[in-house]
Amino acid sequence: MAETALQLDSRDNVLVALQPLAAGTGVRFGAASTSVTEDIPAKHKMALEDLAPGDVIRMYGMVVGEVTQPIPRGGLVSTRNVRHRAEAYSATRQPVSFTLPDAAPWTERTFMGYRRADGQVGTRNYWLVLPLVFCENRNVERMKEALEEELGYGSEGNSYRQHVRKLLQQKKAANSATASAKETSAARVFPNVDGIRFLTHQGGCGGTRQDAQALCGLLAGYIHHPNVAGATVLSLGCQNAEIRMLMDELRARDPQMTKPVLVFDQQKSGRDSTLMGSALDATFAALEEANSATRSAAPLSALTVGLKCGGSDGFSGISANPALGYLSDLLVQLGSKTLLSEFPELHGVEQELINRCVTDEVAQRFYDLMHAYSARAKAVHSGFDMNPSPGNIQDGLITDAIKSAGAARKGGVSPVRDVIDFPQYATTPGLNLLCTPGNDVECVTAQSGAGANLVLFTTGLGTPTGNPVAPVVKISTNSQLADRMADIIDFDAGGIITGEKTIAECASELLEFCIGVANGERLTKAEQLGQYDFIPWKRGVSL
Amino acid sequence: MAETALQLDSRDNVLVALQPLAAGTGVRFGAASTSVTEDIPAKHKMALEDLAPGDVIRMYGMVVGEVTQPIPRGGLVSTRNVRHRAEAYSATRQPVSFTLPDAAPWTERTFMGYRRADGQVGTRNYWLVLPLVFCENRNVERMKEALEEELGYGSEGNSYRQHVRKLLQQKKAANSATASAKETSAARVFPNVDGIRFLTHQGGCGGTRQDAQALCGLLAGYIHHPNVAGATVLSLGCQNAEIRMLMDELRARDPQMTKPVLVFDQQKSGRDSTLMGSALDATFAALEEANSATRSAAPLSALTVGLKCGGSDGFSGISANPALGYLSDLLVQLGSKTLLSEFPELHGVEQELINRCVTDEVAQRFYDLMHAYSARAKAVHSGFDMNPSPGNIQDGLITDAIKSAGAARKGGVSPVRDVIDFPQYATTPGLNLLCTPGNDVECVTAQSGAGANLVLFTTGLGTPTGNPVAPVVKISTNSQLADRMADIIDFDAGGIITGEKTIAECASELLEFCIGVANGERLTKAEQLGQYDFIPWKRGVSL
Ligand SMILES: [Ca+2]
Ligand SMILES: [Ca+2]
Ligand SMILES: [Ca+2]
Ligand SMILES: [Ca+2]
Ligand SMILES: [Ca+2]
Repeated sequence: MAETALQLDSRDNVLVALQPLAAGTGVRFGAASTSVTEDIPAKHKMALEDLAPGDVIRMYGMVVGEVTQPIPRGGLVSTRNVRHRAEAYSATRQPVSFTLPDAAPWTERTFMGYRRADGQVGTRNYWLVLPLVFCENRNVERMKEALEEELGYGSEGNSYRQHVRKLLQQKKAANSATASAKETSAARVFPNVDGIRFLTHQGGCGGTRQDAQALCGLLAGYIHHPNVAGATVLSLGCQNAEIRMLMDELRARDPQMTKPVLVFDQQKSGRDSTLMGSALDATFAALEEANSATRSAAPLSALTVGLKCGGSDGFSGISANPALGYLSDLLVQLGSKTLLSEFPELHGVEQELINRCVTDEVAQRFYDLMHAYSARAKAVHSGFDMNPSPGNIQDGLITDAIKSAGAARKGGVSPVRDVIDFPQYATTPGLNLLCTPGNDVECVTAQSGAGANLVLFTTGLGTPTGNPVAPVVKISTNSQLADRMADIIDFDAGGIITGEKTIAECASELLEFCIGVANGERLTKAEQLGQYDFIPWKRGVSL
Repeated sequence: MAETALQLDSRDNVLVALQPLAAGTGVRFGAASTSVTEDIPAKHKMALEDLAPGDVIRMYGMVVGEVTQPIPRGGLVSTRNVRHRAEAYSATRQPVSFTLPDAAPWTERTFMGYRRADGQVGTRNYWLVLPLVFCENRNVERMKEALEEELGYGSEGNSYRQHVRKLLQQKKAANSATASAKETSAARVFPNVDGIRFLTHQGGCGGTRQDAQALCGLLAGYIHHPNVAGATVLSLGCQNAEIRMLMDELRARDPQMTKPVLVFDQQKSGRDSTLMGSALDATFAALEEANSATRSAAPLSALTVGLKCGGSDGFSGISANPALGYLSDLLVQLGSKTLLSEFPELHGVEQELINRCVTDEVAQRFYDLMHAYSARAKAVHSGFDMNPSPGNIQDGLITDAIKSAGAARKGGVSPVRDVIDFPQYATTPGLNLLCTPGNDVECVTAQSGAGANLVLFTTGLGTPTGNPVAPVVKISTNSQLADRMADIIDFDAGGIITGEKTIAECASELLEFCIGVANGERLTKAEQLGQYDFIPWKRGVSL
């Protein structure tokens, strides 16, 4: 008989329900069993002993909460009787031991990628169009409108115009009003350009100088990204994020300035139509050049992989996140870079990560970033403990430390080679910690700006997130979700919950899947839906 | 002979150059004259006396800077020799005297507007489609793609597809590649619906609870806005900004809940196509109903007017902003509401505004909001003095206090009837202070969310800002700009600089122009360009 609940670590005083547990029934976990005294929804936690106010809740062997109301053995752990609590930590590293999975079967594997002049390898070949300030968003959108449909990057496969047309026909039958429109689509004019990606954002002026600088750093990261052939940049003229600021940030990432960057300034151009005409002409010519790129075999070490969870549930930390951790442990042995981010969701596991840092200096950097971030949240009367969303809580992630303990498993057990801050670019092979919010889109935006040419995103509740330049593979933590939201989920890790698959099996299948995505043979669901989310993290204030 | 420089107040120790002043020439101001010892670019300031480090710079009779390097009489005031300084202020009101312009010619005037069930009157009739969280942006954009072209709200007049098509034809002539596409456009199916406006934003989750609440307040303000007939709302499901939070905020603004609000939840819908199909069907039916609205005559008291400056130059505080102030002084006498915002740009004129507040309580509220905002900027190592942008500085607004002294003139001389904080809705007739950043789009977004059914936006450098629900009239501070960027400027106040027009004449013409816009007879340049900027002010942190 399969287990119906899981004790994640022998030190834990709660079980995770793998399915709904009814009051009065018994529950098996490992070789043991106990009785249920209160209905426990799937994904939620049941007390393994009588708990009194002040007692700590342990999961994954870690402190994840504090009891506020008595909970009997067999009773439900909830926001009514438990509050967030996390273990204190110091910057001093303690020795750790760990075992890495065998990466030998993967050492000779390659993917078909675009080799860039700077040595990086892309999994896609895009042209970027981006504004230095929000005032230019509308012009970027008009370039999109003009270029996408005419050059064959349109939305036919993904349009609801036909649906509206049917509504119109019904209306027409009912009364005399009439309307008609015909959809047409062009063949792809530049077949080796996988797309033109149009970024819009809300920064570049009306804020702090630091945020303007960080925005330029992020945009430079996108231009430097291996999936990008070059960029068209629109400037208004008077904004904080000046053209030279972007160019300095780009030079810091690519001293040879190997990529074409076409810059246009509206206040210098005068008429809007002058600006648009010049930008379109130059972009068109640049696309012809970008179209000369072709794919060739590259080692897996050329991958930079963002690790992300969002819309998490009580199974995230048991199925999909550990599978990602296993995959990360494989990849870092092959020389790839992996990025663990979402710092508010590392609150509670700081000491474990500090212990895994390869030097005191790296550990100190993580310690300092966590402290500064936490202080800033408290300064606005919030805190890391406010991270779990209503959906998280309803699905069993009732404290930030519970969420964190599961979230951190995406990083596996490998040493932490480097710690970098937004909007830095990742340059160190191995596991990197990249300081970002847990906010899904801000995090994926930052990972991509750090050079991620692949993002692996686990979800228990289902969320459609994608990115303009990195393919985002969405992995469900449970099979119900993979089935119910098949149009946004790429890969199902639910077999780990049902016992059909081990974490190692699931991770191997996922890596195979990822190579197909990296090759361009497989488009992610987000790419199919045209879901290109982009939100730069703004840390300062508006002025 | 016309003046070539202006002494704005008899207490001022600097002149504003109305045109470039060459070293060695003389300059006339009022009845006086003096000699120029250094080239002074137009819009910049010249010292009227020898100034030593520590001396204060006075403009509009107010302290706007402190001298850091000696400046000889006739020399240029610049960031090299002057830094920001502003006068201290207290919450205690001092008596003020003021003279209002004669509003009698306008008392019987009306505009043709849409009367809503709640008594408000719209200048436009829109249907709104908006997401509760950024995860739904893509679905909102797909609804836009499906509805706009099919229902006749497309971009033909404003599209660059034809431009790209020409480039393709040239390419075709050069080699054998081919592509073709035909643009089609539908007649407007619902002629009394002026548009469907699709909002996207970057909030609703991954941040503080306070920001989720503020976002719901802002979105409720947009739904409650007199230009809006009703709304379609997309929810993911697990986000912080829950459906009930939006509904509570809407009820607080409109206790009778008079407008149709259609809500769809993706996680409850399962397939993306189920969500999209239901949302489109219901929206289509609601548009039929919204189409029954018609315009009728309404008094000018039904106007709520946002006062805004952006991309400001050294003439903003001399021409367009005083014209707006005059107009505001007319409107408040007619019972309209006017909104002065951009609090970082009121730094330096706090005492003047406090003195004008109608009660101690209103004054204290303004004092408290300015203090809290300033403290928050300092906490992230910034400050109100960082507000001027590179473009502002280059065009003569070298300190925040100089910028503020000119910016505050948009509010005229009328009493301050109320002080409200973002995202509150304005309900008090007369001049209101609404706490927002100077950030152009965040400010206009907030003014519209406070009920502005018209926004007047002055600019010296040229900026394309528009809003999804409020028409934004853009007023140039100088005629060169009106000519050079004719496609984004609606009204030229430059005649005040050349001496062709008085402030009163300019304000009267502008009010006449605004009535045409309110009637819907006249579309603003932003409406013609489809410039619908929307950025909710986020005060907290990402988590
Ligand atoms: Ca997460
Ligand atoms: Ca999340
Ligand atoms: Ca957008
Ligand atoms: Ca301003
Ligand atoms: Ca500005």
